[in-house]
Amino acid sequence: MTTILRLGHRRGRDDRISTHVGLVARQFGAGKIIYAGEKDENMMESLEDVVKRWGGNFSVEYNKSFRKTIREFDGTTIHLTMYGIPFQEKMEELKEVKDKEDLLIVVGSQKVPKEIYDMVDHNIAVGSQPHSEVAALGVFMYELDGGKIPQDFKNAEIEVVPQEKGKKTLEK
Amino acid sequence: MTTILRLGHRRGRDDRISTHVGLVARQFGAGKIIYAGEKDENMMESLEDVVKRWGGNFSVEYNKSFRKTIREFDGTTIHLTMYGIPFQEKMEELKEVKDKEDLLIVVGSQKVPKEIYDMVDHNIAVGSQPHSEVAALGVFMYELDGGKIPQDFKNAEIEVVPQEKGKKTLEK
Repeated sequence: MTTILRLGHRRGRDDRISTHVGLVARQFGAGKIIYAGEKDENMMESLEDVVKRWGGNFSVEYNKSFRKTIREFDGTTIHLTMYGIPFQEKMEELKEVKDKEDLLIVVGSQKVPKEIYDMVDHNIAVGSQPHSEVAALGVFMYELDGGKIPQDFKNAEIEVVPQEKGKKTLEK
Repeated sequence: MTTILRLGHRRGRDDRISTHVGLVARQFGAGKIIYAGEKDENMMESLEDVVKRWGGNFSVEYNKSFRKTIREFDGTTIHLTMYGIPFQEKMEELKEVKDKEDLLIVVGSQKVPKEIYDMVDHNIAVGSQPHSEVAALGVFMYELDGGKIPQDFKNAEIEVVPQEKGKKTLEK
């Protein structure tokens, strides 16, 4: 299973970005997201509502101590950062790791504590430019899954019927 | 050239998401972003500062009328929406279009006006699930470019030197 750890949430200022990180985590196949930083029950509930309506096995947790989350994680830890090694150079290695172990993907906020870079097993860049952790997570998980996006979200109450024009959903 | 149109910016509430959309647009090779919605000079200037420091040919514009921007665009218009046709089904066609014409990629906000779906040439989904427009734009542009991320940003004052641990930049 892949778990996402989102660092440094600030209530109000970060709620939309943190929600987006959670939506991407769920959509691209993670089993869990753990939020650190300020506890924000509204933001977490809005994500849980998405899971309830749209299905899938995805849980939303809070743990104030990102240090503890990283140190106690039983598996391989990967920090996404524009300062890390280009993901293309590590992808084959990381795909093999993913087949054997659980992954913790750490996604930063405005200010990532320096110690994070040393605590994790890999610092990985999706482009070496100022970037969005939301898009970085999406592209990284997409590639890690071999260029696929999971289609099957179990126990959904609703699903989209793709259309050339307009919106169509099916209540199940 | 590829241009991104970001719909419905609200000052304050959307500034981080809109900034992320701009960073992704630049990083994945667009030449321009046009913001509609409320005019937000601070947000636009922060993006322009990134371009000045980190280089590349990328401009930031504002045009209140998204209708005019779409209608008058000389090229092919693509709206990214979870309700559209899965991008995998259209990618070959869109790559051919990109070789011949300019593209306008329209990225939504919380509420996308219904008329957008009819105004554009293509409604394209990056996954048919509740999603992040930031990640959808990243994955879509990445695939449209054949699974690449542009590396060469001209006239940069600074660049990253990728590291296994820690951060290293080079002032040029």
